[in-house]
Amino acid sequence: MGVVVQNVPRVDKAIVDGLAEAGVATVHEAQGRRGCLAAYMRPIYAGVRVAGCAVTISVPPGDNWMLHVAIEQIKPGDILVVVPTSPCDDGYFGDLLATSAQARGCRGLVIDAGVRDVADLTEMGFPVWSKCVSAQGTVKETLGSVNVPVLCARAIVEAGDVIVADDDGVVVVRREEAEATLSAARRRIAAEEEKRRRLATGELGLDMYEMRARLAEKGLTYV
Amino acid sequence: MGVVVQNVPRVDKAIVDGLAEAGVATVHEAQGRRGCLAAYMRPIYAGVRVAGCAVTISVPPGDNWMLHVAIEQIKPGDILVVVPTSPCDDGYFGDLLATSAQARGCRGLVIDAGVRDVADLTEMGFPVWSKCVSAQGTVKETLGSVNVPVLCARAIVEAGDVIVADDDGVVVVRREEAEATLSAARRRIAAEEEKRRRLATGELGLDMYEMRARLAEKGLTYV
Amino acid sequence: MGVVVQNVPRVDKAIVDGLAEAGVATVHEAQGRRGCLAAYMRPIYAGVRVAGCAVTISVPPGDNWMLHVAIEQIKPGDILVVVPTSPCDDGYFGDLLATSAQARGCRGLVIDAGVRDVADLTEMGFPVWSKCVSAQGTVKETLGSVNVPVLCARAIVEAGDVIVADDDGVVVVRREEAEATLSAARRRIAAEEEKRRRLATGELGLDMYEMRARLAEKGLTYV
Amino acid sequence: MGVVVQNVPRVDKAIVDGLAEAGVATVHEAQGRRGCLAAYMRPIYAGVRVAGCAVTISVPPGDNWMLHVAIEQIKPGDILVVVPTSPCDDGYFGDLLATSAQARGCRGLVIDAGVRDVADLTEMGFPVWSKCVSAQGTVKETLGSVNVPVLCARAIVEAGDVIVADDDGVVVVRREEAEATLSAARRRIAAEEEKRRRLATGELGLDMYEMRARLAEKGLTYV
Amino acid sequence: MGVVVQNVPRVDKAIVDGLAEAGVATVHEAQGRRGCLAAYMRPIYAGVRVAGCAVTISVPPGDNWMLHVAIEQIKPGDILVVVPTSPCDDGYFGDLLATSAQARGCRGLVIDAGVRDVADLTEMGFPVWSKCVSAQGTVKETLGSVNVPVLCARAIVEAGDVIVADDDGVVVVRREEAEATLSAARRRIAAEEEKRRRLATGELGLDMYEMRARLAEKGLTYV
Amino acid sequence: MGVVVQNVPRVDKAIVDGLAEAGVATVHEAQGRRGCLAAYMRPIYAGVRVAGCAVTISVPPGDNWMLHVAIEQIKPGDILVVVPTSPCDDGYFGDLLATSAQARGCRGLVIDAGVRDVADLTEMGFPVWSKCVSAQGTVKETLGSVNVPVLCARAIVEAGDVIVADDDGVVVVRREEAEATLSAARRRIAAEEEKRRRLATGELGLDMYEMRARLAEKGLTYV
Repeated sequence: MGVVVQNVPRVDKAIVDGLAEAGVATVHEAQGRRGCLAAYMRPIYAGVRVAGCAVTISVPPGDNWMLHVAIEQIKPGDILVVVPTSPCDDGYFGDLLATSAQARGCRGLVIDAGVRDVADLTEMGFPVWSKCVSAQGTVKETLGSVNVPVLCARAIVEAGDVIVADDDGVVVVRREEAEATLSAARRRIAAEEEKRRRLATGELGLDMYEMRARLAEKGLTYV
Repeated sequence: MGVVVQNVPRVDKAIVDGLAEAGVATVHEAQGRRGCLAAYMRPIYAGVRVAGCAVTISVPPGDNWMLHVAIEQIKPGDILVVVPTSPCDDGYFGDLLATSAQARGCRGLVIDAGVRDVADLTEMGFPVWSKCVSAQGTVKETLGSVNVPVLCARAIVEAGDVIVADDDGVVVVRREEAEATLSAARRRIAAEEEKRRRLATGELGLDMYEMRARLAEKGLTYV
Repeated sequence: MGVVVQNVPRVDKAIVDGLAEAGVATVHEAQGRRGCLAAYMRPIYAGVRVAGCAVTISVPPGDNWMLHVAIEQIKPGDILVVVPTSPCDDGYFGDLLATSAQARGCRGLVIDAGVRDVADLTEMGFPVWSKCVSAQGTVKETLGSVNVPVLCARAIVEAGDVIVADDDGVVVVRREEAEATLSAARRRIAAEEEKRRRLATGELGLDMYEMRARLAEKGLTYV
Repeated sequence: MGVVVQNVPRVDKAIVDGLAEAGVATVHEAQGRRGCLAAYMRPIYAGVRVAGCAVTISVPPGDNWMLHVAIEQIKPGDILVVVPTSPCDDGYFGDLLATSAQARGCRGLVIDAGVRDVADLTEMGFPVWSKCVSAQGTVKETLGSVNVPVLCARAIVEAGDVIVADDDGVVVVRREEAEATLSAARRRIAAEEEKRRRLATGELGLDMYEMRARLAEKGLTYV
Repeated sequence: MGVVVQNVPRVDKAIVDGLAEAGVATVHEAQGRRGCLAAYMRPIYAGVRVAGCAVTISVPPGDNWMLHVAIEQIKPGDILVVVPTSPCDDGYFGDLLATSAQARGCRGLVIDAGVRDVADLTEMGFPVWSKCVSAQGTVKETLGSVNVPVLCARAIVEAGDVIVADDDGVVVVRREEAEATLSAARRRIAAEEEKRRRLATGELGLDMYEMRARLAEKGLTYV
Repeated sequence: MGVVVQNVPRVDKAIVDGLAEAGVATVHEAQGRRGCLAAYMRPIYAGVRVAGCAVTISVPPGDNWMLHVAIEQIKPGDILVVVPTSPCDDGYFGDLLATSAQARGCRGLVIDAGVRDVADLTEMGFPVWSKCVSAQGTVKETLGSVNVPVLCARAIVEAGDVIVADDDGVVVVRREEAEATLSAARRRIAAEEEKRRRLATGELGLDMYEMRARLAEKGLTYV
């Protein structure tokens, strides 16, 4: 309660950008089907694919004071990750905070609560993944913490972890696993390219993956 | 049950249009963080900002008969506000009702239930904020009331109140507070313009709002 | 458990395409307000109106193995209908499965669970109506069944039934009622055209539908 | 924000106690099917039927400071009605507050949020109707208001209104309608007694209420 | 819409009572893990285990007229199964209807909506499994149907099917499968008795079910 | 995926039992308002207060195979903590598993999913806190892990952490903080005893906690 952790190590920019290119579904598979945030986290506008290092913010319900504190901690390429200490739908973040965050190099916001001024944020090109959109404002009365581990939409996020977000949702990659995950993602993409080509010709997954024997053994019956 | 209140006073058109221009988040703040409808009320298409005087309609679950009654009460610049007496997701409103409402000068619909024909409504430019989209139709058997106070998505709306709606959701302004709220909203917009300019240069909210002393007094620790 | 029903009869293509043209809300009304799937089934992108014959798939929670089995059963013009045996939000279906389904003439997917790779699916023009979007992957361990009756989002769907889907949601038409429903839908469209023209001139539904007498008899009061 | 209204008029004790005896379902019917709070408001233990005059409390999310202020406003026979300004599940109220409220004559709590220490409250015989049970604590940082109108679980409650609560949920009766509602409730109870006797002998509601003709006229078919 | 199917065949009383004795979880397993209603269907009081033949009732949202029609169709040993045509939480059923149903030999109610007078129903010993408890009353304006197939809480129920209900929820058994399901349930109970005895001595399921080899083959690692 | 961590250190029995005695709300406050599981985790029967060391189990949706593996890892005084890898309501646990767990000294179950045979579990005195009750059975096909960190109902639980559960819900205490938390809880209980005594005499929290000055400074107005 009331701690700001400074100087969190970040992941190398080339790795972060590689993970963005791979996208959420591929990165999630590449790290063994782990790290997805809950499906209720949706983008405020479609068509963005982004990655960045997490600046985590633990906030009280209905109180966005710590967002101002967190903005000072942003380094270019970061993504803000905001979580209330108990579930809350209020609109913690709008165009003024986005202007400030963007001025410091922030690439987007992931918030397990509400966001507002979404028409302005869309026009500014500041992407947000949130639980909801809500114009309901917040107060500035109670402390929270910055760059402590948070539980965001059923996933643990630590400061400096890589956040990848696109139209499929959000996935988190542990800082120390980022490089290995990128390698695994790239192998996966190469393998999928070949599969996609074969499936497009009408070849069946049943044959390509050699599933027929195992299905028969489990007892699948055709009538 | 079964009452139509006629000749409800409306707010001056210039004030209504001023509130539309200010938008939901600003109006909500300008009246002391009151009046937001619940965050589940979402527009059927993005990019609209509108305001109008409320024609309120209390309907039974699964019965849209009173919408036909209400349309006769519309004056140009009004917005329909529809609330079932118990929670219901049915599609009460579609393109025929919208054609009729639009012909009488209606600016949109706010409904704490479902709407349908959303592709047609989008093409017609008839904006709707609703709890859900549903093709499930309704009957015409039971009376309701028009222009009585209603509880719409956790907010009280009285006939003649100003409804402001945009991508952030919906806010209601009491008829007798509309003028003062517009003044407060305009002061707020002017102040925000200056703040936005400064934040865009990278100046921190921490300094601009002089928050550092109060944060320290509360015990915020940097590590 | 583990059955694939083959050679399911389909509805004539002209009838299916006629139902697509009529759209969800009209088809639902034309068959006596039956057949709507729950309102939480939403399209991953707007602006599509499609119909096809159902290939139904009952899958275990978190296991998409049977989707590979089902793709072999697709005939051109079909729509996949996927339902987990207990509620599940995982992303069962992505761009590889869509490539394979599309190669066999599949027109879309209706899934009472999650879908992923939605940016790719949108670009491919492969429409999906789902409960949610989720990058969370699935396993291939447990059998399910293909072309058995399923309960999808509060509606019964049998293999070969016609699925109609658009921005208003999804409706199912029994195979044996498809022709009669199309006729009823066409009569309804013709009648609505005339009503729309009259309502657009400002004529009231109260008068056009001759509602005033029955409202008075029920006790509606104007004050 | 930050107002305590004192000296709110209460309803006569005999009327309040009469409404308690009638119970929630009967009182709700007696006032024309109005006033029920949403069905998610449940008692922490079964078997209580109580009524009292409302002391309303508008609290910020996650902040129970105003409950201490409200307790001073309790008069014997009152019921506390607590509503957060945005949805919140935290446990605002526990055994210490209940001890204090009970010492001042409070008959129970209705809270559109969480409650805790429910084993102690049950042992003390202090009834609570709440949205949930949660041990999650709250802070004391931000003001709210006491005895202002609140929206509690989809119903408007004003200070001094009568709250009736039992195993069926909670209903609110406007202060100025309390006496008339009690009379209507008593008439209803007398009428039901006779009906219950006849139904218990096997007489059908179809005959007792003379429904057969109207059902036939609407088109009901027996096959 | 508006049909009452009479003279529905029932299952033999001895089979129904045998299924009651087996209980919901066992019956569900005995018929291949099918037939459970959704987990939100909960008993209004604990400790009951009952079975009966379904009298199904399709009702409009907020309208309980057809319950009066259905009561005439009850035969001793039946259970009422009520489903609104679109989701609704209203309290459709209370102590007067229960008195009437009980007088005709009804064993309980399963309702995918709300129930009220639960204290009275508990005292009468009339068990109910419902989606919620709600005092919110209903009207009598629109027809529905009796003894047509209904979709109740994600399960299909046909008139005459056996409903088994206890503290674990509700399961439906097709009329034509009732006898075979009872046999399977009895075999299961006998087998479980022996397993329970061995597990109570501390023997592990891992050994009793010989799971170790298959776990190792799948790759389970102990560290 | 597929790992069983053995020989996890536990907390001293005296400390665990002390935490049980303190109860959930007090322990939660004593560790700085941290560690509560989400409010939807409810006991299957009331009146139990228990604590134990966590044996954590990560299971696939709809698959309870790993519960058999986990039971071998139980030491007397443990509590099972079960979490599906994606949200699932199925009934993973019933009376046979409970018999086996109880035979090995298990004190209860915390499961972020469904449980069944609740009447039997209640009779056995085996307490469970779960998301729901569901008779829906599960398969035994896919591996999970035992004694890995899990995210249970919005809280992180590591193997060996202390779980405290009662009618208020569930709280987790880090293994290394258990002793200090117990001391803080005991100090809190002593202080509350004195407060309860004073509040019961009618003394106000406003005075006892000396809140009046700070409320006035914030601007609280009495009217």
